[in-house]
Amino acid sequence: MKIKITLLLSFIFLATLAKAQDSLMLRKIYDEELVNGQCYGNLHYLCKNIGQRISGSANAQKAVEWGKKLMESYGFDHVFLQEVMVPHWVRGAKEEGIIIDGKNRIPVAIAALGMSVGTPKEGITASVIEVHSLKELDTLGESVIKGKIVFFNRPFDERFIETLRAYGTAGDQRNAGPAAAAKYGAVAVIVRSLTGSLDDYPHTGATSYKPDGIKIPAAAISTIAADQLSNLLRQRKQPLIKFYFKQSCQTLPDVLSYNVVGELKGSENPNKFITVGGHLDSWDLAEGAHDDGTGVMQSVEALRILKAMGYRPKNTVRAVFFMNEENGDKGGIKYAELAAQNKETHIAAIESDLGGFTPRGFGFDGASPEMIKNINLTWKKLFEPYGSDKLVRGGGGSDIGPLKDKTPGVVLIGYLPDSQRYFDVHHSPNDVFENVNKRELELGAASIASLIYLIDQHGFNFNN
Amino acid sequence: MKIKITLLLSFIFLATLAKAQDSLMLRKIYDEELVNGQCYGNLHYLCKNIGQRISGSANAQKAVEWGKKLMESYGFDHVFLQEVMVPHWVRGAKEEGIIIDGKNRIPVAIAALGMSVGTPKEGITASVIEVHSLKELDTLGESVIKGKIVFFNRPFDERFIETLRAYGTAGDQRNAGPAAAAKYGAVAVIVRSLTGSLDDYPHTGATSYKPDGIKIPAAAISTIAADQLSNLLRQRKQPLIKFYFKQSCQTLPDVLSYNVVGELKGSENPNKFITVGGHLDSWDLAEGAHDDGTGVMQSVEALRILKAMGYRPKNTVRAVFFMNEENGDKGGIKYAELAAQNKETHIAAIESDLGGFTPRGFGFDGASPEMIKNINLTWKKLFEPYGSDKLVRGGGGSDIGPLKDKTPGVVLIGYLPDSQRYFDVHHSPNDVFENVNKRELELGAASIASLIYLIDQHGFNFNN
Repeated sequence: MKIKITLLLSFIFLATLAKAQDSLMLRKIYDEELVNGQCYGNLHYLCKNIGQRISGSANAQKAVEWGKKLMESYGFDHVFLQEVMVPHWVRGAKEEGIIIDGKNRIPVAIAALGMSVGTPKEGITASVIEVHSLKELDTLGESVIKGKIVFFNRPFDERFIETLRAYGTAGDQRNAGPAAAAKYGAVAVIVRSLTGSLDDYPHTGATSYKPDGIKIPAAAISTIAADQLSNLLRQRKQPLIKFYFKQSCQTLPDVLSYNVVGELKGSENPNKFITVGGHLDSWDLAEGAHDDGTGVMQSVEALRILKAMGYRPKNTVRAVFFMNEENGDKGGIKYAELAAQNKETHIAAIESDLGGFTPRGFGFDGASPEMIKNINLTWKKLFEPYGSDKLVRGGGGSDIGPLKDKTPGVVLIGYLPDSQRYFDVHHSPNDVFENVNKRELELGAASIASLIYLIDQHGFNFNN
Repeated sequence: MKIKITLLLSFIFLATLAKAQDSLMLRKIYDEELVNGQCYGNLHYLCKNIGQRISGSANAQKAVEWGKKLMESYGFDHVFLQEVMVPHWVRGAKEEGIIIDGKNRIPVAIAALGMSVGTPKEGITASVIEVHSLKELDTLGESVIKGKIVFFNRPFDERFIETLRAYGTAGDQRNAGPAAAAKYGAVAVIVRSLTGSLDDYPHTGATSYKPDGIKIPAAAISTIAADQLSNLLRQRKQPLIKFYFKQSCQTLPDVLSYNVVGELKGSENPNKFITVGGHLDSWDLAEGAHDDGTGVMQSVEALRILKAMGYRPKNTVRAVFFMNEENGDKGGIKYAELAAQNKETHIAAIESDLGGFTPRGFGFDGASPEMIKNINLTWKKLFEPYGSDKLVRGGGGSDIGPLKDKTPGVVLIGYLPDSQRYFDVHHSPNDVFENVNKRELELGAASIASLIYLIDQHGFNFNN
């Protein structure tokens, strides 16, 4: 009996000690980042000296080369590139969009959707039919839609607290709307920008056609212009309002590009991996600051912090700059293929691709209720002082998603910053460095480094 | 025994029902605000059509009149003004600040501290002595300080997660530095702006002299200029660097001004009050958007939401636009005096004066650990879906503070938004409407309305 009690007390003592050490380590991680953080400066370079870096562009290649050098400059144990073929879509000349209200011609802000085809050189002019869902297309049918420009105008549902959910439920208009409208003979599609903010910027983003379907040109229109068009359609009889637009975007042959990978080698399990990443490519309308410059800079920063503190991980910790998340996900797919091919065991993969805003926590994809309970029992208290303690089910991300099938057992984790401002800038000319706050970015990097440390130390086996 | 069990089951049933009703009510409050919110539009008016509104100014009077009309337009049961005499400090002509490095004259961004005296008409030129604390003044003593300009240059300690704590620990330089330096014969004081961001704006704020002490001119200098000056002082021998500055600020006789108060009358306890407020006055360098336009607009919005939902409070709910928080707190003091004089029972007072950023929760001033535990047990779950669930000890605010003594038993509550961006704009020319996010502001208003509802329904008696 005495022995049992002694054992129990030893166990409690050791558990308490471990917790105190973890708590101390997190404090050191945050201190290192808040005092010596470099991700804000690195982001400045990426945004201002390279700028937009859409897949296949010369800037994307510059970003790859700079990213590799950056990782090398930090003295990571191994820095390398992974070859990947990516789509090469180009916007061409600035788009023109005009609402034609009788003799009144009102220029409005539009931008081609990514992967869209262009219009004929002379542009397209047609009557406009406003719809609010893909289902409405089915109801209206070919008799109403044929020959018209379909105008998808369902706004964000502002009642969702997380703006990502509003984006998710409005997103089918952009993703699948053009293909669906083409089936009924529409000549083109304009889509209300996927943002809750009322602004005069078009917010682009990818659309996708059916491989064997008709491809019609599709563009995003600013929310202010969308409201204007909708009001005019209501005030006048619909056929009186026409829309003219012209865009010269096209898809060129695929281009060789790269994921950029940097590693801190594991001292105990060099072939077990904890991956953290974001995507290096961006849309072409701005600097890809929040989407996803912040994610790639936080990823490399997490490793920099651990190294600067002299922390030697048990498992190999990898920062990955994925290529081509925006219009193809080719980098993420390639990374998972290579992981399987090289028989790498992936313990966890963390993705930061929801902007560099103030931290809220992490989402654990496919975690069981039991696991989430244990994560909260064990780690929530540690993150509470840093406001990054919302540890919930769900999460992951596009780039790490393919790992799920390719490296079974991996836990996919999405970094969850506050979501309120993300869609103000998302995919728009507003996504610039000036809209990133230094401390919010740094607190995110420190949160991610902290999670890597905890996973490296304890894994997800909460029973011992 | 049967009766006891039946009673117990009834009790559990009723408690569960009450919780479900509360949960439903909060959802309705957030829906009302996110769909029909008016505080962003109101803030736009306050910032753009009135603008800066320092105590005693014509704009402050405009803001009082507009604020009263706004409350009346919402049909509150009673809208009235409370007379209060306030200081009338004026900045005068734009300040001039120049670093004199031999023949090189470098103009830098400065702004007089609020309540500071002006310089002589020809300005002040003197050698600069850089210090990092008030204590250092005592060490240096009169022999070093006499005839010099004291330059307080202790930066924010970035390791604090909450920026308010960094502000708190750096603040004595501005609040008490000029009075302390005057004692040792300093001719003037310049203070590193109280912000963690490296920018080229001066961030003003009040200083206070001893009633019988010597008053020397004091100004804030931008953090970029502070670093520049500090570097030059290090590179050259100190006496070689001089500083010139000129400001023509002065304090005029006190002016009659007002708190603006609007009420929804309590159906059960009309003489028991739940007060929510912010301050209507602002510094004069910008629009007082986050400080504290957002707070006053959220306060009136909380009442608007409850009224729009047809909610009839049991206790009287009051929105208060306090006057003169920035340089005197006269409005808050007057409000508490009148509350005592009119024998009003105050259940709770909520202040929103930390910016209109994304909600984190509320701080309860002077709450016992037992009370905080109960608040968390009872309300935390309700706020979790809205991210406003950090319910902690501490909080309150300058304007509601005087109620503590004047209306014993009141619970003082500070609204806690995320703090990372506040000091980027605080007291600077950057505090403009454009730096407020609509949804963040609205979520704050809904959080405050929710808390008012819960206090109105349940009070703080968690034993029954």
